[in-house]
Amino acid sequence: MPVNLSAPQASDLLPISGVRIAATEAGIRKAGRKDLTAFVLAEGSSVAGVFTQNRYCAAPVQVCREHLTAGHDIRALVINTGNANAGTGAPGLAAARATAATAAQLLGVAPQQVLPFSTGVIMEPLPFEARIKPALPALMAQAEQAEAATGQAWLDAAHGIMTTDTVAKAASARAVVDGRTVHVTGISKGAGMIRPNMATMLGFIATDAAIAPALLQDMVQRLADESFNRITVDGDTSTNDSFVLMATHHAGNTPVQALDHADGQALYAALRSVAQQLAHAIVRDGEGATKFITVHITGGKTKAECAQVAYAIAHSPLVKTAFFASDPNLGRILAAVGYAGIADLDQNRIALYLGDVHVVQDGGRRPEYREEDGQRVMQQSDITIRVDLGRGAAEDTVWTCDLSHDYVTINADYRS
Amino acid sequence: MPVNLSAPQASDLLPISGVRIAATEAGIRKAGRKDLTAFVLAEGSSVAGVFTQNRYCAAPVQVCREHLTAGHDIRALVINTGNANAGTGAPGLAAARATAATAAQLLGVAPQQVLPFSTGVIMEPLPFEARIKPALPALMAQAEQAEAATGQAWLDAAHGIMTTDTVAKAASARAVVDGRTVHVTGISKGAGMIRPNMATMLGFIATDAAIAPALLQDMVQRLADESFNRITVDGDTSTNDSFVLMATHHAGNTPVQALDHADGQALYAALRSVAQQLAHAIVRDGEGATKFITVHITGGKTKAECAQVAYAIAHSPLVKTAFFASDPNLGRILAAVGYAGIADLDQNRIALYLGDVHVVQDGGRRPEYREEDGQRVMQQSDITIRVDLGRGAAEDTVWTCDLSHDYVTINADYRS
Repeated sequence: MPVNLSAPQASDLLPISGVRIAATEAGIRKAGRKDLTAFVLAEGSSVAGVFTQNRYCAAPVQVCREHLTAGHDIRALVINTGNANAGTGAPGLAAARATAATAAQLLGVAPQQVLPFSTGVIMEPLPFEARIKPALPALMAQAEQAEAATGQAWLDAAHGIMTTDTVAKAASARAVVDGRTVHVTGISKGAGMIRPNMATMLGFIATDAAIAPALLQDMVQRLADESFNRITVDGDTSTNDSFVLMATHHAGNTPVQALDHADGQALYAALRSVAQQLAHAIVRDGEGATKFITVHITGGKTKAECAQVAYAIAHSPLVKTAFFASDPNLGRILAAVGYAGIADLDQNRIALYLGDVHVVQDGGRRPEYREEDGQRVMQQSDITIRVDLGRGAAEDTVWTCDLSHDYVTINADYRS
Repeated sequence: MPVNLSAPQASDLLPISGVRIAATEAGIRKAGRKDLTAFVLAEGSSVAGVFTQNRYCAAPVQVCREHLTAGHDIRALVINTGNANAGTGAPGLAAARATAATAAQLLGVAPQQVLPFSTGVIMEPLPFEARIKPALPALMAQAEQAEAATGQAWLDAAHGIMTTDTVAKAASARAVVDGRTVHVTGISKGAGMIRPNMATMLGFIATDAAIAPALLQDMVQRLADESFNRITVDGDTSTNDSFVLMATHHAGNTPVQALDHADGQALYAALRSVAQQLAHAIVRDGEGATKFITVHITGGKTKAECAQVAYAIAHSPLVKTAFFASDPNLGRILAAVGYAGIADLDQNRIALYLGDVHVVQDGGRRPEYREEDGQRVMQQSDITIRVDLGRGAAEDTVWTCDLSHDYVTINADYRS
């Protein structure tokens, strides 16, 4: 059961002019579910992306990187689930290229104008010839003929990219830019193997706003750093993490050139709102999650060391199982702070707050702290841990979930 | 159920002349179990130790470090379970000092000649006045009057330092040094919060061999690096990790001065055999463990990068749950290799072996690999993963276990 996360409704999702979507059942791994999704973008759209830092990156990630730097306008995205096309060597790379080339041919564009994405099991051959190739003609035709993607089409796409997700993930926002209303809609997927480092498993956000292409790459990077790069479920960075931002320029505004004026700020706020909702949804739907945990570190010398401490806490199986048990066994948090790798950390300056309860002061348990106060907070399903390092003014936040029996069940059974 | 690990028998454990042991029920956390143990060492013994790198180190670790550098001969160790005396601030430090001072007074030695150790729940006040102080007179008298610790006394001590361990951990070895037989016996405890970085939760090894005090610190560090520093259960480095090597010099050999001659090598081999057995026993008894996994990385540029990759695999919850399920979902291992942090890793040079099965070559699945071969190895309870990085001649090995439902149960319930 996802933590305080309800399924998005088609009526909540804003169409984005210039984006058309189709999803189909290609039978890649399992029958009877949508597992192949296509985005077709209007001519003149701008696209930027960030990808996994995993050195063992999947074949489609390699192809995306090539195509995004080739300098052609991107006109389509093709996304399959059921198979990650990672650890598949030269045949896997060929299959990713063939996916892009086949879709491109059907659309009458160059292969470099299509981005392929895959998610699912690692190290299995991608069934391009058997499953994907036969499904592409109808899929691309359906996408080309579609209306500007409706809320229902976005919702279908959100379902079409799911793997172990239990709830589809989609969100929308509006902003006023240059006197015009612009629209933002995005989808994401992911529930396990989540410690994105540049991006999540898969995230796609589109806007009809015009954005200077030179700004788009900075924008997607900054968005990732404030959303998908601040979540973790199990500390495993996927081979396939990809986050793509698409701007169709259909809203008719003067292109946004920078983030430091009112229009840029308004647009960025709408994009960040969608990106953070999508990122939080991944944690709330984290495999086996029963609690959504915000880890907020303050008083650090640098933002980087705050992140380091936040991840040490967020990755500790002992902290995560204590939260699953609603047990305020908070010494485990102190232990994680201690091993986070800050060499000159002074344990006597550390403070710890659980929700609104001040637990630790000057490195030791406060005499006023009562176990029942900790217990009260631990019963909640949305909990904030705050640790003050007492050595500076920097801060950072990471979002994570607990570690439950269901995490083990899901991951022990994933392939069966 | 520990993995291929049976309880040690008193008859397997060699007495060490110059070491006396007692253990008692002080009622520190739970009634009816031995939770306070004392070692008393003959005059002239040499002692060295290595301790947790956790910056949030427990009060007794701070006191041990002070006492070992004070330059007095160490004459006794006092070890309690049930309470880690960590995250306890100034009162915790005072309680650790009082434990040492009280034991010292009873023995008629200086406080700096006693080392205190604690293990158990973090951030609870140590009940020194209520539980430890009243128990010390009888405990120290019993230790002083004991024979040179018998096998049964070592076994009692191994039981006396347990927390979530299901099996006591103890081992012995002999060596011939300078024409005389010398003896080595050790005990350890630990099952969770295990990613020692200098030492394990608690490990104590004694020998009657004479060893030059100047060599002892090097020896304990090297022993830790080849045993306790190469295991991980859950990646959590404890606040209390301590590993102590004691030499009573009672065997009458000319003191061993260096490791690079025959006597030094023979003694070191016996010590390493005991240290590795104790370290492996911790993994075999790892919380919820059903499999003992050796992660062997070869073909690295440096030993450090091999360790980095080995730990990434050994800490991946996805790898560990796959092993629990006996599912050869080996792409998860490749993903962990990829995110281990080697920036210039070439994925096309990686090879992966599961037991005797060659799974991956040149970064991709071998055409000859058959799932049933992987399945066959996964059914075993002792499994070796070997990854060749294809970039050098360095190698390293880490030992770990799988991640099961019982790990979650044990850690969700630990305090209840």
